[in-house]
Amino acid sequence: MRRTTISDLNCSIAQTLEVVGDWWSLLIVRDCLFGVRRFEQLQTRLQISRNVLTQRLEWLVEHGVLERRPYQDRPVRHEYVLTEKGRDLWPVLEAMRGWGDRWYAPDGPPVEGVHDACGEAMHAVPTCDVCGQRLERTGMHVRPGPGATDACPVPVAG
Amino acid sequence: MRRTTISDLNCSIAQTLEVVGDWWSLLIVRDCLFGVRRFEQLQTRLQISRNVLTQRLEWLVEHGVLERRPYQDRPVRHEYVLTEKGRDLWPVLEAMRGWGDRWYAPDGPPVEGVHDACGEAMHAVPTCDVCGQRLERTGMHVRPGPGATDACPVPVAG
Repeated sequence: MRRTTISDLNCSIAQTLEVVGDWWSLLIVRDCLFGVRRFEQLQTRLQISRNVLTQRLEWLVEHGVLERRPYQDRPVRHEYVLTEKGRDLWPVLEAMRGWGDRWYAPDGPPVEGVHDACGEAMHAVPTCDVCGQRLERTGMHVRPGPGATDACPVPVAG
Repeated sequence: MRRTTISDLNCSIAQTLEVVGDWWSLLIVRDCLFGVRRFEQLQTRLQISRNVLTQRLEWLVEHGVLERRPYQDRPVRHEYVLTEKGRDLWPVLEAMRGWGDRWYAPDGPPVEGVHDACGEAMHAVPTCDVCGQRLERTGMHVRPGPGATDACPVPVAG
């Protein structure tokens, strides 16, 4: 048994992983957030095979993360631009940047994120979108939501 | 050319993806955050082959995300417990829950996260850990950090 999809798991984390649960997809989104749009640039930056890059770009277009746009007529050439849905992956990448900086950057972060408003190198911390308080893992619990089914993951007792 | 590692990319996002850049790793971490500790439980919940689950658990132990602890003597049986490093992946999963809820939950979220402090179903939003303001993707920029090398990803001009 080797699963080729996890889309049957009724869980928003699983749905997210179904679409971007591999290295390349999120590194492509990272580069697109950095302003990269063209196949050749992505290939050079990621050192990925043309074949794999083509597959991943098609997948991301199919799933509405990227939009393919012509930027030249003769010959026709396309570039790849993040959709709103694709740009909305930014908090996932910020959270990954934070984890990598904490656990895999003994010499300090390779890249710093600077918050324009305060001018400081910062990391993102999760905050409650209702009350604005900083969230802690132990300060929340889960419950079935309106879209719950028997296939939903639930905490185990104990 | 088929890469088997991306650990040579000097980028904290790539380092994170190297360790947990596949479906199963993050779904295992999700379930462990839900209190699951045992092989059989994970296998039933994820409907994953024993072989793949064994490999992923070994990988996560090797990379310090999970700790393997004996819970029974005769015969010896082990359970898997998140380390501090593993628990620290929680913001990544919260960000993924948010994205999945926004883009893949037409009937409403399958699972709601409730903030104990305010009692409301909520999502995490990224906030600056320096000044406390809510972060927007367009309100930040990146620069080389203390661990920067030529292999770091940088934005493209234009």
